[in-house]
Amino acid sequence: MDDEMEGGKLGPYQDRPRTFPNMRSKPYTPLIFRILMRINVRVLFILALLGLGAVFYVGARTSPIIVFVFTVCIISFLISIYLTKWVLSKDEGPPEMVQISDAIRDGAEGFFRTQYGTISKMAVLLALVILSIYLFRSTTPQQESSGLGRSTSAFITVAAFLLGALCSGIAGYVGMWVSVRANVRVSSAARRSAREALQIAVRAGGFSALVVVGMAGSMKVTDLPLLLVGYGFGASFVALFAQLGGGIYTKAADVGADLVGKVEQGIPEDDPRNPAVIADLVGDNVGDCAARGADLFESIAAEIISAMILGGTMAQRCKIEDPSGFILFPLVVHSFDLVISSVGIFSIRGTCDTGVIGAMEDPMAILQKGYSVTIVLAVVTFGLSTRWMLYTEQAPSAWLNFALCGLVGIMTAYVFVWITKYYTDYKHEPVRTLALSSTTGHGTNIIAGISLGLESTALPVLVISAAIISAFWLGHTSGLVDDAGNPTGGLFGTAVATMGMLSTAAYVLTMDMFGPIADNAGGIVEMSQQPESVREITDVLDAVGNTTKATTKGFAIGSAALASFLLFSAYMDEVAAFAHVPFKEVDIAIPEVFVGGLLGSMLIFLFSAWACAAVGRTAQEVVNEVRRQFIERPGIMDYKEKPDYGRCVAIVASASLREMIKPGALAIVSPIVVGLVFRILGFYTGQPLLGAKVVAAMLMFATVSGILMALFLNTAGGAWDNAKKYIETGALGGKGSDCHKAAITGDTVGDPFKDTAGPSIHVLIKMLATITLVMAPIFL
Amino acid sequence: MDDEMEGGKLGPYQDRPRTFPNMRSKPYTPLIFRILMRINVRVLFILALLGLGAVFYVGARTSPIIVFVFTVCIISFLISIYLTKWVLSKDEGPPEMVQISDAIRDGAEGFFRTQYGTISKMAVLLALVILSIYLFRSTTPQQESSGLGRSTSAFITVAAFLLGALCSGIAGYVGMWVSVRANVRVSSAARRSAREALQIAVRAGGFSALVVVGMAGSMKVTDLPLLLVGYGFGASFVALFAQLGGGIYTKAADVGADLVGKVEQGIPEDDPRNPAVIADLVGDNVGDCAARGADLFESIAAEIISAMILGGTMAQRCKIEDPSGFILFPLVVHSFDLVISSVGIFSIRGTCDTGVIGAMEDPMAILQKGYSVTIVLAVVTFGLSTRWMLYTEQAPSAWLNFALCGLVGIMTAYVFVWITKYYTDYKHEPVRTLALSSTTGHGTNIIAGISLGLESTALPVLVISAAIISAFWLGHTSGLVDDAGNPTGGLFGTAVATMGMLSTAAYVLTMDMFGPIADNAGGIVEMSQQPESVREITDVLDAVGNTTKATTKGFAIGSAALASFLLFSAYMDEVAAFAHVPFKEVDIAIPEVFVGGLLGSMLIFLFSAWACAAVGRTAQEVVNEVRRQFIERPGIMDYKEKPDYGRCVAIVASASLREMIKPGALAIVSPIVVGLVFRILGFYTGQPLLGAKVVAAMLMFATVSGILMALFLNTAGGAWDNAKKYIETGALGGKGSDCHKAAITGDTVGDPFKDTAGPSIHVLIKMLATITLVMAPIFL
Repeated sequence: MDDEMEGGKLGPYQDRPRTFPNMRSKPYTPLIFRILMRINVRVLFILALLGLGAVFYVGARTSPIIVFVFTVCIISFLISIYLTKWVLSKDEGPPEMVQISDAIRDGAEGFFRTQYGTISKMAVLLALVILSIYLFRSTTPQQESSGLGRSTSAFITVAAFLLGALCSGIAGYVGMWVSVRANVRVSSAARRSAREALQIAVRAGGFSALVVVGMAGSMKVTDLPLLLVGYGFGASFVALFAQLGGGIYTKAADVGADLVGKVEQGIPEDDPRNPAVIADLVGDNVGDCAARGADLFESIAAEIISAMILGGTMAQRCKIEDPSGFILFPLVVHSFDLVISSVGIFSIRGTCDTGVIGAMEDPMAILQKGYSVTIVLAVVTFGLSTRWMLYTEQAPSAWLNFALCGLVGIMTAYVFVWITKYYTDYKHEPVRTLALSSTTGHGTNIIAGISLGLESTALPVLVISAAIISAFWLGHTSGLVDDAGNPTGGLFGTAVATMGMLSTAAYVLTMDMFGPIADNAGGIVEMSQQPESVREITDVLDAVGNTTKATTKGFAIGSAALASFLLFSAYMDEVAAFAHVPFKEVDIAIPEVFVGGLLGSMLIFLFSAWACAAVGRTAQEVVNEVRRQFIERPGIMDYKEKPDYGRCVAIVASASLREMIKPGALAIVSPIVVGLVFRILGFYTGQPLLGAKVVAAMLMFATVSGILMALFLNTAGGAWDNAKKYIETGALGGKGSDCHKAAITGDTVGDPFKDTAGPSIHVLIKMLATITLVMAPIFL
Repeated sequence: MDDEMEGGKLGPYQDRPRTFPNMRSKPYTPLIFRILMRINVRVLFILALLGLGAVFYVGARTSPIIVFVFTVCIISFLISIYLTKWVLSKDEGPPEMVQISDAIRDGAEGFFRTQYGTISKMAVLLALVILSIYLFRSTTPQQESSGLGRSTSAFITVAAFLLGALCSGIAGYVGMWVSVRANVRVSSAARRSAREALQIAVRAGGFSALVVVGMAGSMKVTDLPLLLVGYGFGASFVALFAQLGGGIYTKAADVGADLVGKVEQGIPEDDPRNPAVIADLVGDNVGDCAARGADLFESIAAEIISAMILGGTMAQRCKIEDPSGFILFPLVVHSFDLVISSVGIFSIRGTCDTGVIGAMEDPMAILQKGYSVTIVLAVVTFGLSTRWMLYTEQAPSAWLNFALCGLVGIMTAYVFVWITKYYTDYKHEPVRTLALSSTTGHGTNIIAGISLGLESTALPVLVISAAIISAFWLGHTSGLVDDAGNPTGGLFGTAVATMGMLSTAAYVLTMDMFGPIADNAGGIVEMSQQPESVREITDVLDAVGNTTKATTKGFAIGSAALASFLLFSAYMDEVAAFAHVPFKEVDIAIPEVFVGGLLGSMLIFLFSAWACAAVGRTAQEVVNEVRRQFIERPGIMDYKEKPDYGRCVAIVASASLREMIKPGALAIVSPIVVGLVFRILGFYTGQPLLGAKVVAAMLMFATVSGILMALFLNTAGGAWDNAKKYIETGALGGKGSDCHKAAITGDTVGDPFKDTAGPSIHVLIKMLATITLVMAPIFL
């Protein structure tokens, strides 16, 4: 292999130092990781036993549910450490791979530190604002009855906010930490066997998925669920900025690299001659891995919070003796998630591989098989959990209704994945039509892509509508009634459906993380000039990664839609509690409330505009820099001169930090301003609760527009990407044809759609839902 | 001039017959026009006197308001006949111009006949559906008290529907009829003087504007305002299909012609060598003129209907002795509109022109001056009308509040026009930034354009929000109270603001019609190979037309938003009347209602998708046809062979008729299906009025999403167009540069946005509002 390398085209580079002096630095690994990595397996085993002993001791004094949840969390923590050690024990390949991987790692970790530094400062500022609001607000009857003083609950809320932010940050960090280490190992394994490469990528993804879900699942049980809201807001706040900053980074670098490299100079993707190629590879890690880790953590956290609040409220209303089953149910579901997803991850094995490409199984089929295993187990364990947790003598068949709600959620997730696949996979009609429209030029390609994206919103909306209504009615007719005999289980049914949807979250996150790791591995293989056969393996993995990434986005939107509908009802309860009056209706026939809705939808459009524009502007800076380097260093094209990768990394990093502020600030400031303005207007026009109602309408309209906009952006972007890939398989003229050029334009436009604006919007929806909850006191 | 022509490049064409044998037919002019055209001015004068005499005789027996309205309508009808005669008396220029103009007219009239044939069949079908619904529905208390039987009111509703459809069709026909005749006269006048050309275009536009507004303004007063709803539905039904069919036609031809002609072959726009050029010019007439005529007619009709209903209800609630002032107020406002717009139109004079380009005044400034005159007069007459019509002793200062509401509306219109201009005119920052983004390629141009469009929704939404709330509060505090002392004037205040916004509709429509006429004139000049100086004049007029077209779209969206908010409240009243129970709230916290909202927003996305896709597909057919002609007839490029224009016209006509059905049917069927499904669901789950509530939410969410989507599509399209024009002025590399090619891609994408999907959406919103009103009985 090495002989091939030295005889290869890389020749001229050999004379130069193989490092990137302006980018190298000591690899940065936080202390906790270094300690964990050094621990012997036997020590871990003893530690685990000790931990379990402690849990059982606590459990004996509290409840078996807590014991179960903590046991699963500890075991999955051990599994994740095992996965890391397994991944890290793999070889890193030849020095040229290590060198590229080091540059990627330095870039990613450097950006991560700066980005999270900025986010931390903003979080502290926001914490002070929350603190001052809560110190001067009135308290709710619940708080008064629980004996918590105003300042105590203020400090607990702020602490919860900071803890949520910290956990979300850790979730992001873990995702990136493992992916910058796994990428080179996947590349190296691809030299030996496709199956091993696949296994490494899956297990690396699995590591962070287990950590992320485990962290969300181990949230402390509390008698004050509303304080959990601070936690949710902290998590979504960090997730939003992580997704925005990372998304701008990755796509600005990608678009900039493609526009000059692929379109103008005609060199392949990830070619070492492209000065923006390292920035592009760094972007995969900070944008896709770090951001998605924070995002999924936040999804699960938001869903657990809203479900716990709802479960508690409902159990109280129905006078169920032991409400802990209803409150702790989400934690049990996510504990099972850890178990069944681990089974799914371990079902993907590295053996039984012939090592020959032709005989290689389709990696998509392998991942799908793992997903099927997980889904089947999810249905079984979900049924068990509902019987265990939600059985109550008041309504003996309620658990069955809720099990069906869970099934609705699992099926919704499955159908969402299927629909996304239909619209973004080039095996199906829509992408083929899109590819065909590229033959008549750039313009028709873009028109067709936008139409496809807009059209693709219809089926998911119908599915989510059916899911909301059927889950609501299953819950409503569960037999749970309040004092007056009114059915109360409707909303909780919707919550259970959301949990069902998220009951395979760890496996889905694994598939999602797989994408950027495979993408990076492909880049390293391409840049280190490996032979064609190695590249073919990573190309196949990369293509599969694209599909899994697209489908998990559909999954994330679906769960965001359901979660935000739940948080909306939590918000109404919260307002009622603060205002000491019932707050049951949001009537859009009132002009101010209608205007609130108008403003909420507008917020989504403006946010998308600013997110896309940020990528466009930054990409233009990259384009100008890359063009400049090609002009000033004409030797680059003949491999005679080395491009200045560091310059592009620096441009993209500083620009994305700058650009993430505007849309992020918009998302935080708008609901507060709207709430305050209409609160004042309501005061002068004699309409009580006007501010709270207008914010409610804003939230609902933003959710609806956000779901549609996110579906549009993600699907259009994915479809453009795959239409290009379809043409690259040789269809309609193949690589280099005019049709291919038009398809590249579509892909470029799709980049900020599917990786910046699109995935930010569902995070935005959830952040809006949590910020309104936290800020509720100031709207009254 | 003719000498120049013969010595020009057209040489080779001289040997061939100058006609288009496959397209020529006897010019088709309906009998009524032929009779009117032949009438001597003196006969007209006598007829007018007779008409006025009759009106005064009727007026003496009814009310002075009716006399005023009818007098103004008759006068404006005379003025419009004068304008036609004036325009038609202008010369048609040399035979080569006439020949091209004849081809355009044949194409436009042929398409119009086929299109309206299809629409008529659908209208008859729908009329039968409405008839059967109304024959089997229950009646409202109002109907019972007025003594109208079930079948009588059913037939009246259906007759109103058909009448509305017919009027809307006439409005469209008039717009097209005059524009296909004015275009060649404007081209011919451009050979003499810019000012004269401008005047002809303005007066031709003025003719159809006066007819359209006059027709809407002369709606018969009735004691059964709800039957007017059938009229509104008929009008919006025809407007929707006219806009869809015409919009697909014009943009498919335009995109197809540009993609091959400008991008691939590098020939100028409207070059006679392009086989799709005639189809493109025909499209301007059927898409822009006919469709916009029907659209504006519908806007005014919808607004008059909702305002009359609201005024009547409010006057009844407040026990105002003579409610006719409140009911007839909209008619008076539109009568004044006819007067002041005529003044505005006649303020644009053809004299004081030096005939030299350099000394020529900016046509935009001339049109703006006319608009300023009209706006000032509107403020004055609006104040007079409110004092005259809305003065009541119960609330002596109410009229002042309503005058301020009108001022709010007029200012909203003005600010809307200004914002649209800011985002679409290349004198301002946004379009310049967009042009700059074209320098880095097709991809960044598209990303920047989409961001610009999404961002441009923010300011109009803020303005419309402020307008809705301030008008509502001005009305609310007007002093008008019901029996119980509750203020009732809020919604009527919003209605008055809408009227204020539409109080210059005739002038705005004139400016709008000016655009396609100038565009056509430019095409005829280009095709008949006139000298450079003539082309410069038409180019300037064309550019001005682009700006006026963009601004009037903003105007149309703003008024649609306000009108549909009003129709929404009319719908709630209607449901309450049928159901015999109060229907005051649409609570989006109910899952089904939330789902209705989700479906409403989705409807907008899906409709936009299908409208854009229709243009994309048809454009691809045109591209393939044009490419085929260039390959099969290589002589075309050297003017040695004549392209087959008729083939492109036929392709576009049949495709656009086919393609308009799917989105149109979606718009009509969705609310009916959703209403029926949820009515049944509500029946089985014990929720009364569920169908009606879900449809209400659907309507509101569709309105909000529709406003945003329409603003996005129109502004993005206009900005792309003008960014291209900016580059064509020589900036950033000028014509033929890579930057220009990227800008053309943007312009191509923008075409279906701004001329097909965008302007269809606000018609769709209003059609949804009227269809729910008409279909209300079946949702209960």
